Amino acid sequence: MVPVIEIVIIGDEILSGWTIDANALSLINSLATAGFEVRYISVAGDTISEIADILRHAQKRADIVLVTGGLGPTSDDVTVEAVAEAFGLQLILDEDVLQQIEMTFQRRNRIMSESNKKQAMIPAGAEPLPNPIGTAPGIYLQIRENSAKSDRPCNINLMPGVPVEMEAIFRTYVLPRVKEGYKPSSIEITTVRVTGISESQLFDTIKHLPGAREAFAFYPSPMGTEIKIRTNSTSPLNASALRDRIVEIVGDYVYSTKGESIEEVVGSFLLKRGLTIGVAESCTGGLVSHRLTDIPGSSSYFLGSVIAYANEVKDSILGVNPTLIVKHGAVSSEVAGAMAEGVRKVMGADIGCSTTGIAGPSGGSPEKPVGLLFTGISSERETLTKRLQFVEERRINKAMMSQAVLDMLRRYLTNDMRSL
Amino acid sequence: MVPVIEIVIIGDEILSGWTIDANALSLINSLATAGFEVRYISVAGDTISEIADILRHAQKRADIVLVTGGLGPTSDDVTVEAVAEAFGLQLILDEDVLQQIEMTFQRRNRIMSESNKKQAMIPAGAEPLPNPIGTAPGIYLQIRENSAKSDRPCNINLMPGVPVEMEAIFRTYVLPRVKEGYKPSSIEITTVRVTGISESQLFDTIKHLPGAREAFAFYPSPMGTEIKIRTNSTSPLNASALRDRIVEIVGDYVYSTKGESIEEVVGSFLLKRGLTIGVAESCTGGLVSHRLTDIPGSSSYFLGSVIAYANEVKDSILGVNPTLIVKHGAVSSEVAGAMAEGVRKVMGADIGCSTTGIAGPSGGSPEKPVGLLFTGISSERETLTKRLQFVEERRINKAMMSQAVLDMLRRYLTNDMRSL
Repeated sequence: MVPVIEIVIIGDEILSGWTIDANALSLINSLATAGFEVRYISVAGDTISEIADILRHAQKRADIVLVTGGLGPTSDDVTVEAVAEAFGLQLILDEDVLQQIEMTFQRRNRIMSESNKKQAMIPAGAEPLPNPIGTAPGIYLQIRENSAKSDRPCNINLMPGVPVEMEAIFRTYVLPRVKEGYKPSSIEITTVRVTGISESQLFDTIKHLPGAREAFAFYPSPMGTEIKIRTNSTSPLNASALRDRIVEIVGDYVYSTKGESIEEVVGSFLLKRGLTIGVAESCTGGLVSHRLTDIPGSSSYFLGSVIAYANEVKDSILGVNPTLIVKHGAVSSEVAGAMAEGVRKVMGADIGCSTTGIAGPSGGSPEKPVGLLFTGISSERETLTKRLQFVEERRINKAMMSQAVLDMLRRYLTNDMRSL
Repeated sequence: MVPVIEIVIIGDEILSGWTIDANALSLINSLATAGFEVRYISVAGDTISEIADILRHAQKRADIVLVTGGLGPTSDDVTVEAVAEAFGLQLILDEDVLQQIEMTFQRRNRIMSESNKKQAMIPAGAEPLPNPIGTAPGIYLQIRENSAKSDRPCNINLMPGVPVEMEAIFRTYVLPRVKEGYKPSSIEITTVRVTGISESQLFDTIKHLPGAREAFAFYPSPMGTEIKIRTNSTSPLNASALRDRIVEIVGDYVYSTKGESIEEVVGSFLLKRGLTIGVAESCTGGLVSHRLTDIPGSSSYFLGSVIAYANEVKDSILGVNPTLIVKHGAVSSEVAGAMAEGVRKVMGADIGCSTTGIAGPSGGSPEKPVGLLFTGISSERETLTKRLQFVEERRINKAMMSQAVLDMLRRYLTNDMRSL
């Protein structure tokens, strides 16, 4: 049976417009990857009667209800009480859960507070889902009574609102049970990530593909554009065939068909080739290094960086000749090249790369406007530079600039380290 | 009477996770500015029976229902049919609306398609709300029957899903009627940001304040906890008084009452005191520098950083004595101190700060587990270090570690650069 799935988001912060809920999106995407579709989403504030009302309604129309939020230790966390009220269940102190919460505090060398005891109260007949990260366990329960769906039970899954905790519990306990108990629909979903080409150019290039209008959705960001491809049994081409056609047409603007970030892609190439890297950053201010070191195991290829914001640092640590700066300016192809070469030598790395530019909002001039970027790549054999112009706000500029140098690295590493 | 307001979002594209709905956020913010709160949000796909079910439920619990989407000319636009089904109403061709649609096409020099006629079908007794931009009119109707709210009628407002059209109709017709018919609540909202204390400890410290249970909401993140304070005319203390009491009790764990990030706070202190800073990062991999340089104008106090992932870099650039690393390990108080001092000297900065630790997932040992962090701060007068233990996933560890060293800087700069 293909299940009816409903997501219930709990929290005043959503209704107040204080946060955009990322959990719904993450659940929808994880479910879609497994072939399951979400039919309803409901949002409720932190009030027992409102949450109970929504849960009773969800129980009547859905086979699977995924609830996020309201499991914390504070008084505005009332999801469990609302479940008890909605379905007339008693709350019982679960000694195992209490012990797990105590252990989490011990690991952190902290004393468990009295208010955390509340998180060990579980509705009678429910199953706690251990939280590998935080203190709030997830809770699973099945409701059979009084359903408009006749004899089909409703599976209710409560998960914490903190995204990493929600995802861990969803992946470990909730999704396997969905997969085991229900049939996926015949959707096929895949994805292509490109960078260095605008969304509209990209669209014009691939819109003629069969079924494109229904199948493609475009998600532009500072990191480039993600094309989501979604097909079903009536589509003229299935998603993986469409993906392959896109890769054929769009060529090396594509950096991943597996949902990877570009820093993951660059990291894999470095690892595979046994190469080490050093980074010299000016305008990106540490973001390139931060992204490279987000990848587990990056210490085997990433040696270190120099963030050279002040010109003196470009000279004193990276060995950029001060006359280069005087002659061409700190934001120049010459200085980008010298920074990449300098950081390669000072780190003893196989490859050096660099950014120098103007992130804004101030510091621009008619010749060198805000958003101008020079990147450099240096190996023992050669030093290459590239000029790019962005026109965004400071943080977006930093993000786009970091993406540009990582993309230059990717192209350098894939093209046998020659052309860009 | 303060109304119960519900937003209903219609559209498969929302449930597919392919768009984040901006209409809900825009409605919430416009209503909040006028003093009105949203209590429920529901999302339904493009299916008549599902939408009808949601509308019936909304009519029972809400005084005002704001529906967006599903008013277009295509076959997947079924909101009006769903209203007719939900409340047993006939659909009647409205000649005025038809004429308006025809005129919109004339203005655009286009021929009206047969499918647009559908947009002139209005439920009996309803009032069309002219669309100044597109073809789909909004629709207003009042339902009185069968309500759990006894004699209070439910005002249903249908609006198009295209944001500019939705906003125009909301502003022109819907909001004025809400303001005329209902009383706004007297909400006051403010915020306190703290770091270095757990959410539950924080809660235990301030839960006794008058009205705390209703007024406080806690938003934990790797950056600490944000307390949102929300009061109305019935609250025992107003939001700003509660904020002042929290600051009194929680003391220097508070880093902002104005919604600032800690890097903004640190930046302001450096600027005010005319001090410059250099950063030496190991486990945080560039994130501290990235955060400091996200602040416009940071180049006037941030000179640069050395990301010393490899031990050789700690020695060769930062001048950390290799025997210190051999004796105490790279992750040690001694090395954190030497890195902070080293980066201060090599950058020629007034203050140096450092991180060395184990971000994970690998690299831990029983004595030095994943999540261990040593931070250092060095000025001409002294060098201080601090040991902290986190127990998170790599990216969360990096975020918490970067927050810890920025908080150490904040405390150092506020406490006349002496104690931490």
